[in-house]
Amino acid sequence: MSSPQALVTRPDRAERGTPVAALITRVLVANRGEIAVRVVRACRTLGIESVVVYSEADRGSLAAQLADRSICIGAASASASYLDTDVVLAAALGSGCDAIHPGYGFLSENPTFARRCVEEGLAFIGPNPTIVGGTGDKAAAREIARTAGVPVLSGSDITDSPDAAVAAAVQIGFPVLIKAVAGGGGRGMSIVADEAELRRRLPTAIAEAAAAFGDGRIYVEKFIGRARHIEVQVIGDRHGTVVHVGERDCSAQRRHQKVIEESPAPDLTEATRAAIHAAAVRFSEAIELDSAGTVEFVYDSDTEEFAFLEFNARIQVEHPVSELVSGIDLVAEQIRMAAGLPLSFGQDDVTPTGHAIEARIMAESPERGFVPVPGTVTVWQPPSGIGIRVDSHCRPGTVISPYYDSMIAKVIAHAPTRDEAADRLIAALDELGVDGVPTTVAFNRFLLQNPAFRNAEVTTRWIDQSGAEEFCRTLEETT
Amino acid sequence: MSSPQALVTRPDRAERGTPVAALITRVLVANRGEIAVRVVRACRTLGIESVVVYSEADRGSLAAQLADRSICIGAASASASYLDTDVVLAAALGSGCDAIHPGYGFLSENPTFARRCVEEGLAFIGPNPTIVGGTGDKAAAREIARTAGVPVLSGSDITDSPDAAVAAAVQIGFPVLIKAVAGGGGRGMSIVADEAELRRRLPTAIAEAAAAFGDGRIYVEKFIGRARHIEVQVIGDRHGTVVHVGERDCSAQRRHQKVIEESPAPDLTEATRAAIHAAAVRFSEAIELDSAGTVEFVYDSDTEEFAFLEFNARIQVEHPVSELVSGIDLVAEQIRMAAGLPLSFGQDDVTPTGHAIEARIMAESPERGFVPVPGTVTVWQPPSGIGIRVDSHCRPGTVISPYYDSMIAKVIAHAPTRDEAADRLIAALDELGVDGVPTTVAFNRFLLQNPAFRNAEVTTRWIDQSGAEEFCRTLEETT
Repeated sequence: MSSPQALVTRPDRAERGTPVAALITRVLVANRGEIAVRVVRACRTLGIESVVVYSEADRGSLAAQLADRSICIGAASASASYLDTDVVLAAALGSGCDAIHPGYGFLSENPTFARRCVEEGLAFIGPNPTIVGGTGDKAAAREIARTAGVPVLSGSDITDSPDAAVAAAVQIGFPVLIKAVAGGGGRGMSIVADEAELRRRLPTAIAEAAAAFGDGRIYVEKFIGRARHIEVQVIGDRHGTVVHVGERDCSAQRRHQKVIEESPAPDLTEATRAAIHAAAVRFSEAIELDSAGTVEFVYDSDTEEFAFLEFNARIQVEHPVSELVSGIDLVAEQIRMAAGLPLSFGQDDVTPTGHAIEARIMAESPERGFVPVPGTVTVWQPPSGIGIRVDSHCRPGTVISPYYDSMIAKVIAHAPTRDEAADRLIAALDELGVDGVPTTVAFNRFLLQNPAFRNAEVTTRWIDQSGAEEFCRTLEETT
Repeated sequence: MSSPQALVTRPDRAERGTPVAALITRVLVANRGEIAVRVVRACRTLGIESVVVYSEADRGSLAAQLADRSICIGAASASASYLDTDVVLAAALGSGCDAIHPGYGFLSENPTFARRCVEEGLAFIGPNPTIVGGTGDKAAAREIARTAGVPVLSGSDITDSPDAAVAAAVQIGFPVLIKAVAGGGGRGMSIVADEAELRRRLPTAIAEAAAAFGDGRIYVEKFIGRARHIEVQVIGDRHGTVVHVGERDCSAQRRHQKVIEESPAPDLTEATRAAIHAAAVRFSEAIELDSAGTVEFVYDSDTEEFAFLEFNARIQVEHPVSELVSGIDLVAEQIRMAAGLPLSFGQDDVTPTGHAIEARIMAESPERGFVPVPGTVTVWQPPSGIGIRVDSHCRPGTVISPYYDSMIAKVIAHAPTRDEAADRLIAALDELGVDGVPTTVAFNRFLLQNPAFRNAEVTTRWIDQSGAEEFCRTLEETT
């Protein structure tokens, strides 16, 4: 397949002042749902054409409607469409695209895909394949962090030997977490209180990891009782500049899935905040970051210490809260970076204004244990007004398919203070009109009104330990 | 009629820190369309109940749906509903409201209505009746400005004598404008080039004013060839504090109706900007402003001088551009002021960030001379995303009635720079999905892309003199 002309002339590094639309003229959006809409919007603003690929289940999607062109790439199953590297690349080349935006999930952190884009002369709108590959390996990322002087959690080496794991745990101090190397999102993870329990659990953990992930290696890590999830938005260009765009607190998680995210993180000392930012920039400089990414940390509310968790080489679901407080269009900036342009702003230009909070709205039934409920959105009436942003692919008639994740919208509020942002967000949730599928709106409202949230006392286990279950019992009683 | 309990205890001046919802518990929204939705949203955010009144033509409106309660107050004709003081007051008292928000238009600048609200123990969410009455008289407002050291346009006294008018015009210098005292929005106004033309036109102008407005008095005023409309958002509290919230440029007008508004005003020296702000604050202090208002100025692009035009004692249609650059919720602040609270921010807190541009979307047919075309909105798909706000009362099924003004939405974009804001606004207009009525979206896009707009060369007569007519001929040819 031949590459379009534009590719040949696009330099690796472009000069400041060159319009991005002169370097990248047509972007393939290799994703679906709200993030596909988000990327199309960024392209429109930059004067770049967009081509959206869609599966048979996403025919007539909002992203496809808003794009300049849309191409069906296969059946509903993600492996037959959004995960099919060959078909996605063929769509990009066949439609004369000169760049690909992978969104999040699907192919976004697949180093092979990133490499093939480059080989085909397509700009991959994300970090270069070496970064995608290198940071995707958790142990390697941890080692990079350690070398860059970024605190990492006390943990054992990766092992499949119970004796080695126990020796390390004794050194670290109990309680500890057993984690499967190949696990993630809370899977393959368990807390153990003491040495006896660890000895008892290890063989099972190793066997389970081998069975579940095809990889029995585990490691043990210090367990933090009152942990918060704090992550830093970073972005770098091909000219050697790396900046951070502030931090986000994503501690409000249900079974390790983020529910509510905000920026800035509440209740941090300015010294800690600055230290976290500096650590994130050190890590990003170490990997020579050339696009947007996120450095995730665990923060110990008791000791006020933080430690590196992992690096995400892509745009995050929760990026809008950073956009609202910084005024920076992160997706447009990703595209500029992929065109080889220098960052359009410097570290001194990042001056967060106010506070932003995002609520993820899922097509799930909280009273039935948050089971996803596919269906057709019959009524879709999004809120608007001062400080309110809704990122969604819904409109009346949108089909919420069982094949993909159940998020139907992100409602984000920006206001001068955290309390005002929460109040605005609640008012927006109250205004949101949706029918045809159940949603988690009432659950989000419950969280946003909860004193623990208002007092910034939320830890990553808070929802699981208290609020959600109790609240969902209430829902069941009243419906 | 008895007043609700809350009224008795609401102090004239309340202390900082008292929640506004403890002082005003239920607001009657005495308006319709997008501004009624806007006020309901502010109430929701503040935890205050809202009651919306509606005419038979507005049954089932979005504002009525979003409010805690809605009350039909009469027939479609404004005089039989939104302008009927008695019925509006009865609705407020009968539903236990303790405050009334009049929006813009209708009763918002009617001093008799404002006074009756106060007499009935209802907080009028706007300046006190003395201000509403005093500034509504243009000659009186001009005199206040002069006394406060605010530049006013050279003009004659008000007169119905042609000889007096001619003598004044000779003093001012030609060309001059003849203006009917009772006119407004461009009605009762004409430009004359020299003394002979003035003598010829005056008798007709006086007779026409008498016929059209029941008041034959006129005045002549210096005519500015390259005039821009610049206005300053001001707000004051009952504790003696007045601040400005920056200026807006509303020069893009079609037949004296604003089409595109923005903040800050482009292409002003910082000295001029500061002088305009200071003049607006001096005027507001002179009238002891105790709510939100707007001081309107004419700005001469050739001399870089500005002069007072008039004061609007209400929220303006274009207030969102000021909200986006300042981060201040002006409608919420109006409610706080009416509750007697001190301003929640000081002048130093007003630090405009970026640039905001608003496009008014009308249900009009540009190719047929912008005639309003009522109808039913069948498709309504508003844009969203970073920096985009849509203030509208539309949703699928909304009836655009011939009884009221034809504005169906305001689309507002906020971005770091003016060009980026214009690009974002254009992308949002491209994304807006609307069917069932014709709109001025293409006209707005034409203006936003026009070099004259991009170069900040727009004067108040620019659209009428060039762009619009030509553009509308194009539309006619292609449809």
